[in-house]
Amino acid sequence: MESSRFQSFDDGSQPEKACERIAALRRIMAAEGLAAWVLPRTDAWKNEYLRACDERLAWLTGFTGSAGLLIVLEDQAALFVDGRYTLQAAEQVDTAVITVLPVADHRPADWLAQRLGDGERAGFDPWLMSRAEVRRWRSKLERKGAHFVPVLPDPVDTVWEDRPPPPEGEIFLHPVRFAGMTVAEKLELIRARVVEADADHVLITGTESTSWLFNIRGHDIPHTPVVLGWTLVPVEGMAELFVEPDKVSEEVSDALAEVAFIRPLQALDARLRELGEQGARVLVDEEHAAEELLRLLEDAGAMPVPGRDPCVLPKACKTEAERAGARAAHVRDGAALARFLCWLETAAADGSVDEIAAAIRLEEFRVDTAERAGEPLFDLSFDTISAAGPHGAIVHYRVTTRSNRPLKPGELYLVDSGGQYRDGTTDVTRTVFIGPPGMQPDAEMRRHYTLVLKGMIALSRVRFPKGTTGANLDVLARQFLWETGLDYDHGTGHGVGAFLSVHEGPQSISRIGHAEFRPGMITSNEPGFYLEGRYGIRIENLILCREPVRRAEGEREMMSFETLTLCPVDRRLIDPTLLDPGERAWLDGYHRHVREALSPLLEGDVEALAWLERACAPLTKG
Amino acid sequence: MESSRFQSFDDGSQPEKACERIAALRRIMAAEGLAAWVLPRTDAWKNEYLRACDERLAWLTGFTGSAGLLIVLEDQAALFVDGRYTLQAAEQVDTAVITVLPVADHRPADWLAQRLGDGERAGFDPWLMSRAEVRRWRSKLERKGAHFVPVLPDPVDTVWEDRPPPPEGEIFLHPVRFAGMTVAEKLELIRARVVEADADHVLITGTESTSWLFNIRGHDIPHTPVVLGWTLVPVEGMAELFVEPDKVSEEVSDALAEVAFIRPLQALDARLRELGEQGARVLVDEEHAAEELLRLLEDAGAMPVPGRDPCVLPKACKTEAERAGARAAHVRDGAALARFLCWLETAAADGSVDEIAAAIRLEEFRVDTAERAGEPLFDLSFDTISAAGPHGAIVHYRVTTRSNRPLKPGELYLVDSGGQYRDGTTDVTRTVFIGPPGMQPDAEMRRHYTLVLKGMIALSRVRFPKGTTGANLDVLARQFLWETGLDYDHGTGHGVGAFLSVHEGPQSISRIGHAEFRPGMITSNEPGFYLEGRYGIRIENLILCREPVRRAEGEREMMSFETLTLCPVDRRLIDPTLLDPGERAWLDGYHRHVREALSPLLEGDVEALAWLERACAPLTKG
Repeated sequence: MESSRFQSFDDGSQPEKACERIAALRRIMAAEGLAAWVLPRTDAWKNEYLRACDERLAWLTGFTGSAGLLIVLEDQAALFVDGRYTLQAAEQVDTAVITVLPVADHRPADWLAQRLGDGERAGFDPWLMSRAEVRRWRSKLERKGAHFVPVLPDPVDTVWEDRPPPPEGEIFLHPVRFAGMTVAEKLELIRARVVEADADHVLITGTESTSWLFNIRGHDIPHTPVVLGWTLVPVEGMAELFVEPDKVSEEVSDALAEVAFIRPLQALDARLRELGEQGARVLVDEEHAAEELLRLLEDAGAMPVPGRDPCVLPKACKTEAERAGARAAHVRDGAALARFLCWLETAAADGSVDEIAAAIRLEEFRVDTAERAGEPLFDLSFDTISAAGPHGAIVHYRVTTRSNRPLKPGELYLVDSGGQYRDGTTDVTRTVFIGPPGMQPDAEMRRHYTLVLKGMIALSRVRFPKGTTGANLDVLARQFLWETGLDYDHGTGHGVGAFLSVHEGPQSISRIGHAEFRPGMITSNEPGFYLEGRYGIRIENLILCREPVRRAEGEREMMSFETLTLCPVDRRLIDPTLLDPGERAWLDGYHRHVREALSPLLEGDVEALAWLERACAPLTKG
Repeated sequence: MESSRFQSFDDGSQPEKACERIAALRRIMAAEGLAAWVLPRTDAWKNEYLRACDERLAWLTGFTGSAGLLIVLEDQAALFVDGRYTLQAAEQVDTAVITVLPVADHRPADWLAQRLGDGERAGFDPWLMSRAEVRRWRSKLERKGAHFVPVLPDPVDTVWEDRPPPPEGEIFLHPVRFAGMTVAEKLELIRARVVEADADHVLITGTESTSWLFNIRGHDIPHTPVVLGWTLVPVEGMAELFVEPDKVSEEVSDALAEVAFIRPLQALDARLRELGEQGARVLVDEEHAAEELLRLLEDAGAMPVPGRDPCVLPKACKTEAERAGARAAHVRDGAALARFLCWLETAAADGSVDEIAAAIRLEEFRVDTAERAGEPLFDLSFDTISAAGPHGAIVHYRVTTRSNRPLKPGELYLVDSGGQYRDGTTDVTRTVFIGPPGMQPDAEMRRHYTLVLKGMIALSRVRFPKGTTGANLDVLARQFLWETGLDYDHGTGHGVGAFLSVHEGPQSISRIGHAEFRPGMITSNEPGFYLEGRYGIRIENLILCREPVRRAEGEREMMSFETLTLCPVDRRLIDPTLLDPGERAWLDGYHRHVREALSPLLEGDVEALAWLERACAPLTKG
């Protein structure tokens, strides 16, 4: 079997070790007088993708999902996961040792508060929870007379004997031709926000924010080219970037020489103490910053000024260069995906392709297509979800050598994948029917697929005024499923960075997406439907929020979305009788655009071109 | 001209007096050392409809809308109003004395903060602002070094020499056959919430809450049968109701004897002092309770426990008896409206009916229809909006003898009205075309009307899961307007009480309606479209949230809305080519239901029955 450069299919999960590892943790808990230990899956920067050395939750439990929280008590342990992970967690952990609980039904802090007695202590690592989280947990526990106490060093680290070392890998520059703004311009924006907030410094704790602000990228985190570091920006004077000194090349230090001092990570503590002595007012995002940073600031005598990270909004509103980069990256990415789907249609029709082989082939097409186009693939933007048949119903399924299964004729195959290109980040999901030309999906599959497609189209077409949020628009993607009593247990869309994280706020399309859409934001549009034990359906495009326009006299300015993702949707799965004329017209227009955009990159590949032509033909009425 | 029992068409507004009255206020401000005075339009209970003696804003400025805030500085005065009132305010006030500013563009506290210098003082009446409001204002002003200080007595009351006396009028019982729950049952619910909040008392400051809790109603406020009072409920022992003793009949005191002590309003102060001495923990809604009440509590030494008013949610989720009452009230109300629209079609066709005559005639039909049906009309639920032609574009237009104009052939007429019946509160808007049978509305009117209708239908038909909010659903009503660059500057729906206020939370359908829908909630569904200087269109039904149901195996439980309002929509204004088959089917089904429900009450009225038959006939394809 060929191998992948960017992802592993080993099941690193060791659920059989959970019993002894948790027992070791309990011994430390007992020694420290802790009735409970609370472990969220994150790192000191609240990253979503983690270095191996930060995968505490996976090491302890075997659960490898991207979000989860473990509570260990003396006699039980509970893993709280969201709707994307309920099936996966139940499969991955030893349920004799760990109970899996859906967060929708059990709020972890409430669950813990019910189980703690008066005066008992629950511990947490103050690098892994934000000030705001600590405040919420503490208020719930204190009502029961229990205490929520920071403990360092993290007891999990103490028992983790074979912990991998942190990765090495240089920081590199993200050129202005991609970023569209210089560091000096960005610093000016940020300083204005600090003044508005009546502070004299801002402490920036998000790795995407630091990477965006200094136009730098790194190799620390798989699939996410962020730099692990902290930033301090004063209202006047040089900014300070705290990073591992070994990772800073001469090129980087030269480029930043006029705007920032580069200091070692360990120097932050002393610097905060200095700020404290000056009685500095430091803007800090309490929802994001680790509790430990706030403690350092306060102990030093500085005055934290709570407020949002001022980088988040300008980072989300992509510059013209970033928009152009995203469009270009999507052409390459779409061409790779078209070549893959063309190959898959024939190769998988007889059941001879399995999930890992498909994921590897897709990666090869991405690497090859990008190379030919002259802008190489830097990484995948996340581990490819390559899910055949019933695996598709596991929303964030990750194929391993253990779970691998063939794509069987008559089944659905769901592939959710993306690339990190220097000019943009992609994220796309397609669901296709596997089988030889004569074979047809059953009516129920087609109905479900078409209901999901209608939702995706509704969101693609909507026009909306300034002030509209993702919470306002979410229903458009769900309405057709709801009408027939169906739904999906995940958000409809998340923000996407520019050669940064594939999940970036502030905007999201979900019941609780309260950030307003603004021109330049890139967001996913990915409704789905999941039938446990049978199949999963998801169709995902990235959409770019356009500038507001007024189309005619007397009308108001409206915003809308430009669809960035360029890849046909599977016509075999569409029941055209369920589409109205407007939806059919949208889909035909989209396919026409996909064909025109991708054809140049497929030049010479006769098979792929012919496939694209067929896949993008206008719908005939059903 | 005939007259109305329930509303006045006098323009009480005296804009010409604003100059001298504001000058008098400024003299007190100067004496008190105040650089600014902040006056919101409300009373000590945050009521929306006010006693004449609480109409401080209208007396001072001439503006009679239901929401607004005035800031008086030494050299200028600014009235902040929302989108419903920008046109009306500009017409009603003397703009040489008062500047009208839309709140969408100018946040009053920011506006004031920009105009105050270091050390300057802005004053407010602590009975007219909640603790939470005061906190927000204060934090903005303090950033500029300015102070926000409570001042009693209210300087406006000092300069208001001919201030009307408070109304008299007995409190009366709201029987359990309408309420569906006894006071004891309600108190049990509330006590459980107080225990959950870890408090030992709750201070209930909302008049709807007090009226709901004790199954009592009153005559203090026009159109809203609430009792002006405060309630104190301890976790154990008798509740206490603080009201004007003169208004309590023997019947009421007998009915409440076993559950509550009745005490004079003035006794609250002393009672709070007692609680303070006991170190009581008092649950109080800081978003609602007047700052002055919080000050009294704190000065007394009590410990306020911030939390939501525990009556709000159970009050919003109507009992079976309240749902049945609402249905019955809507049959009477619909029959009255049908008789009115039948009369209007003929009477107004030649332009001989004016806005006041129409409003009076509608009230007469309400009184007469209700009387015949044996459940008399208690009041209107608000001043009827009777708006011909361009007046329709003034969202909350109130006709006065000064503004009165005829309903002219070829124009639209918008009528938004409602009744207070002992078994339910109604609120309905219809927009109709005025003119003889041959005359047709122009294509643009029909297009606008049909876009509004499509939004109203989309919300009527939606199915949605538990957890869905009004912010999630709002887009359904707006999407068709947005598609063509149009919108309306008001929410799509507000909660409605049961023989209580016509505007009651917690739910609303708007961008910021974050309360979840729950079975039994009654909400308005009222999209609109307004073309300044030409016409206004609004179509409003009340909708009742149904219990969730699962319709088939494998599906999820979904909620939906039952439309309560029973009144045809004007077919002349519909462009059927803009409706899809599902929308046409919904409308035909609705009209069939309206005809069946109203016909019995129109028995004997040959003309009205024939009109109803025509108005409810199925749509023919356009």
